[in-house]
Amino acid sequence: MPASRTLTLLTVATLAGLAACTERPAESSADRAELAEVTSAVALPSWNEGETRRAIIDFVARVTDEASPDFVPVAERIAVFDNDGTLWSEMPFYFQLQFALDRVKAVADEHPEWRETQPFQAILEDDREAMAAFELHDVVEVAIAAHSGLTTDEFDAIVDDWMATARHPRYGVAYDELIYQPMLELLDYLRAHDFKTFIVSGGGMDFLRTFAEEAYGIPPEQVMGSSGGLEFRMDDGVPTLYKLPEINFVDDKAGKPVGILRFKGRRPIFAAGNSDGDLQMLQYTAPGNRAAFGLIVHHDDDEREVAYDRDSHVGRLDQALTEAPERGWTVVSMRDDWKKVFPSPELP
Amino acid sequence: MPASRTLTLLTVATLAGLAACTERPAESSADRAELAEVTSAVALPSWNEGETRRAIIDFVARVTDEASPDFVPVAERIAVFDNDGTLWSEMPFYFQLQFALDRVKAVADEHPEWRETQPFQAILEDDREAMAAFELHDVVEVAIAAHSGLTTDEFDAIVDDWMATARHPRYGVAYDELIYQPMLELLDYLRAHDFKTFIVSGGGMDFLRTFAEEAYGIPPEQVMGSSGGLEFRMDDGVPTLYKLPEINFVDDKAGKPVGILRFKGRRPIFAAGNSDGDLQMLQYTAPGNRAAFGLIVHHDDDEREVAYDRDSHVGRLDQALTEAPERGWTVVSMRDDWKKVFPSPELP
Repeated sequence: MPASRTLTLLTVATLAGLAACTERPAESSADRAELAEVTSAVALPSWNEGETRRAIIDFVARVTDEASPDFVPVAERIAVFDNDGTLWSEMPFYFQLQFALDRVKAVADEHPEWRETQPFQAILEDDREAMAAFELHDVVEVAIAAHSGLTTDEFDAIVDDWMATARHPRYGVAYDELIYQPMLELLDYLRAHDFKTFIVSGGGMDFLRTFAEEAYGIPPEQVMGSSGGLEFRMDDGVPTLYKLPEINFVDDKAGKPVGILRFKGRRPIFAAGNSDGDLQMLQYTAPGNRAAFGLIVHHDDDEREVAYDRDSHVGRLDQALTEAPERGWTVVSMRDDWKKVFPSPELP
Repeated sequence: MPASRTLTLLTVATLAGLAACTERPAESSADRAELAEVTSAVALPSWNEGETRRAIIDFVARVTDEASPDFVPVAERIAVFDNDGTLWSEMPFYFQLQFALDRVKAVADEHPEWRETQPFQAILEDDREAMAAFELHDVVEVAIAAHSGLTTDEFDAIVDDWMATARHPRYGVAYDELIYQPMLELLDYLRAHDFKTFIVSGGGMDFLRTFAEEAYGIPPEQVMGSSGGLEFRMDDGVPTLYKLPEINFVDDKAGKPVGILRFKGRRPIFAAGNSDGDLQMLQYTAPGNRAAFGLIVHHDDDEREVAYDRDSHVGRLDQALTEAPERGWTVVSMRDDWKKVFPSPELP
């Protein structure tokens, strides 16, 4: 993480946090209003002034002000974030899929049969046409091959190594540099107001947990995602967990609210997503009749990133975009609402 | 919760917490030693002086003292507790099974077929002999019948109502009064030293979460347990989660470390259990070669509670008891180590 970004984040978090702290003893609503103004002036510095930024700040003010009818106690201030396309980029395709493709190539020598078996043959021969025609079961097969047959510790080390060495084809940087600066500020802003922030991703939980704490400040126990089978074994007295070649839970679409309830046990009051995979999570969190915030990151910036929505094969945003106005969800325009996309000064 | 207990707990927690806070600025190891002595004098008041209490206090001192080679940073201070037989009683049989039996009786009118179908017939006729012969699949069938076919909100309300009205056959009090006072103090003591406390139970997660926060101070997202299928539905625009008649995950035996890793993402350094169902969790946490604490509650008090271990059908403690000395686990004698068992002054 570049030092400059860390500093900015710390400053914002500290200022917002301090304001949140000093806010408590303030007795009069005039005091409160003044402090809220100070907080909101420094908050979310990479967000342009406008309706979106104002909606976020107003919502946080409403649910954290004890005098407000929408006040929400700290224990219930749960915020859930999708990852792919919401906290980091997902183009040209999901970064974890790139990890899986790289992993298949890395272990191909141990699987000579892959040279003549699809979907592996297409990957090993870099046959883009065949890969573009992959169906769901092909992707699942590749994912399972790349994510099982090893211990959880071995897997963590492999992901760490991949993250340190793999480079994005367009931006030429490590994939964990392609996280969204405005969303980092939003996470910090919510936490400064005593929200607990969670990731609820269709991506792999174990994969996400290797970098979520450093990238987003979200500890492993607050990262939900899809998962494979696990088996506990004592190997010569050493407790070991093996990743099995099977799917355990798919944390996507209607699986997201199920995952949230199983994992968290409480309904969130803030949900952020970017695709129809987040529709049910948004419906569950912000059906339109309670003090809750639904946020959709709309990828409409074809210069700094990629513009896509209703017709995209990755991160399709169709039904959720249609439902947004009637449920009062806030649609974030990456092009208009964000001053900057990525943290690094060398990136847009 | 009786007021007296709340007060005692608060006092202990505050004192221990204060000591933990003031401990930080202390520069010399002499200062630290003195403060540690103050803390340990007020800690765990329902635990008799002796090896067990000393082992707990010494362990906590070692892992929280920055000068110690066994120091563990706050983020890794994870403590996991089994529930049945570890945090509350489990005799004459698991309390949740009593809930399930009561539930079957309560809804029997909606299921006339149960009058002539086992295992339900035995329950409705109070046929103790037939019930004692129940096999695992019978119990599973009863559990599923009692825990599904309704929304999560409905289920929570039913458990709340049962907990408020059902009475234990021997002690004549609500089941959530039969939690162990010394274990409550242990939870508080660990939290005062910046441990994060979790439940890892073979019992139902949804059931546990209805009372764990009030009874143990453990919020829903820190309660792992067995779970059934869940389905998300929008009912006339209202987001609803239905409990399906199927088993999703059994959080027992080798399932416990799997559940911990899926849920928590980090290996604990403190694990407490009471039966062979906790063996793998103890092995995973405290295999014997790292700074970690394994604790076994041994039910050897036939006066105040029930004495049982290797031959019991409920909470059998056999292999874990055999393995305890070689792995350095601390076996708690309820008879000798606990001054008091339950919080209420009217109970032993």
